[in-house]
Amino acid sequence: MRTVEWIDDKLSLIDQRQLPWDLQSVTYEDYREVAEAIRVMVVRGAPAIGATAGFGMAIAAQQFSGSDRLGMIQHLEEAAEVLKAARPTAVNLMWAVDRLLRVATDEELTALDDIREAMLREAQRIADEDVEINKRMGEHGAALVKDGDTILHHCNTGSLATVDWGTALGVIRSAHAQGKQIHVLLDETRPRLQGSRLSAWELKEAGIPFDIIADNAAGHFMQRGEIDIVFVGSDRTAANGDVANKIGTYQVAVLARENGIPFYPVVPTSTIDLSLASGADIPIEERSPDEVRKPYGLALVPEDYPARNPAFDVTPQRYVTGIVTENGVVYPPFDLNLQRAVAGTR
Amino acid sequence: MRTVEWIDDKLSLIDQRQLPWDLQSVTYEDYREVAEAIRVMVVRGAPAIGATAGFGMAIAAQQFSGSDRLGMIQHLEEAAEVLKAARPTAVNLMWAVDRLLRVATDEELTALDDIREAMLREAQRIADEDVEINKRMGEHGAALVKDGDTILHHCNTGSLATVDWGTALGVIRSAHAQGKQIHVLLDETRPRLQGSRLSAWELKEAGIPFDIIADNAAGHFMQRGEIDIVFVGSDRTAANGDVANKIGTYQVAVLARENGIPFYPVVPTSTIDLSLASGADIPIEERSPDEVRKPYGLALVPEDYPARNPAFDVTPQRYVTGIVTENGVVYPPFDLNLQRAVAGTR
Repeated sequence: MRTVEWIDDKLSLIDQRQLPWDLQSVTYEDYREVAEAIRVMVVRGAPAIGATAGFGMAIAAQQFSGSDRLGMIQHLEEAAEVLKAARPTAVNLMWAVDRLLRVATDEELTALDDIREAMLREAQRIADEDVEINKRMGEHGAALVKDGDTILHHCNTGSLATVDWGTALGVIRSAHAQGKQIHVLLDETRPRLQGSRLSAWELKEAGIPFDIIADNAAGHFMQRGEIDIVFVGSDRTAANGDVANKIGTYQVAVLARENGIPFYPVVPTSTIDLSLASGADIPIEERSPDEVRKPYGLALVPEDYPARNPAFDVTPQRYVTGIVTENGVVYPPFDLNLQRAVAGTR
Repeated sequence: MRTVEWIDDKLSLIDQRQLPWDLQSVTYEDYREVAEAIRVMVVRGAPAIGATAGFGMAIAAQQFSGSDRLGMIQHLEEAAEVLKAARPTAVNLMWAVDRLLRVATDEELTALDDIREAMLREAQRIADEDVEINKRMGEHGAALVKDGDTILHHCNTGSLATVDWGTALGVIRSAHAQGKQIHVLLDETRPRLQGSRLSAWELKEAGIPFDIIADNAAGHFMQRGEIDIVFVGSDRTAANGDVANKIGTYQVAVLARENGIPFYPVVPTSTIDLSLASGADIPIEERSPDEVRKPYGLALVPEDYPARNPAFDVTPQRYVTGIVTENGVVYPPFDLNLQRAVAGTR
């Protein structure tokens, strides 16, 4: 079962808001509802959002009821705007939507049904590529893990954040599959608890030993020498190696460096944005304060207590030991070596 | 209304587990129940625990039904062990109990009722001194706050953590009382949410502007230049200036130094343990994983998910800008200057 899957002419998503309690899927036939699913985080995680948005564009093409090509392209450009606006930080949302738009505007395709078919094939290709890329990152990353290591992980970057397998959690899956004895400390990742709810659910299903910790405890375990290596994901990586990822990642990176622990973002090249010189210009989504006050409806504090809720932060490249991509592990100088890693896929 | 108060021959404690929803008090006439109240965190915060334990010893004296002095002292030594075992990290729990034991063993007192009376007076003195000490720390600390500052605060260190006014939150109260325009960012402080539940309740009551943030967001706001100064409490400070405090404090300290932001623990000299050369030997209480899984009964994750829950961490003195005591702000070299600050009260 994939997190993002095309089944019976519909898009099927695992509803991550129901986990770890229930494993439920929701199906979609309207691109606006797909955008809403991204916005309210039925689906989350940069690669999963990318694959979902690809299918969202394919759905938009199917929804077009007119007969002229120009009208269809105009309709698709509108759909692209709606989908891109759903989450401002995830770069492969933009990347996947643009990739589908390029197929739609391919001048060799003229019949509308041919365009529709090509778009669906392209969306499917993005999903399939994601799984293959994750497996390759898993191999490269697992080579960094030693038998007996305790790994710190932040947020969720597993099957549920991708189409299948995962990025940073994919590295953990690969290390476990290689027979390495590992133990994982999972930051619970407030406010939305992707670590304690989603990553914990995945590791439990996979039989990989773990403990959930409050985000406050990561530094303490590092200081005590109980963490050997850190793997995280990335929603957008700049050309210089600055990494935008789930709020709290920056703290983990600073603490890792302070304690001499290697810190590796696991980053499909589709999330590397070479057009951004540094992370300073990455827009940081600020989400509803209710995620802080009452996650999943569980009231931790009264509703009228003010709260702020930035969803991402930027880790400057000086805290990054190396970046695991599907084309190998990239080390400094990142400006040069990330360009090479990205070029390797083109 | 004080957090810890002697009313009608009974000890009255605000039940902090009910806040911010209900302001309720519980009364105690049995020292074993007082120890249990400390253990389950009806009352928490190092100075409040100290004052509570002082009254707990006075209650133990009243509970003794025999007639011989030696039997009473033996009974009090048993009570001292029970009270000290309730929370292993808080040094002024030990300090207050020992202070009451010294009164009990004062050879000038022979009549049991005289001992009982002297012990109650001493417990009351500890409580009254705490309020006075907090006001003095408030003045010293507030001098470090500039008009317009945004202050980061971790855990709860206010009226609820003390007898009244507070330590780090007392500094914030004093700065506000001086008419300084300040804004406070409150780390929610997982797992027990003392920041979002207790500190937020106090600041709301006091009319001091604040926002709650997830613990993950503190570094992000520092990095963006949105935090000017950090104040935290301390459960135990070693002779070299190492500070044991609520889990997450170490992370805040490292991030503050990394971003050039001053970091000040606010520390009554009763929590300075000159017998400890460094923080390395401070015992760190590991509490129930249920605090991570289901704080206040709110199930965030399934009950069988494994979790670890260290309640405190140690911040090495190299991250500490200065230590605010009732005898002034102490700067490095801490070994020398903390000794002087402690001597100033004796």
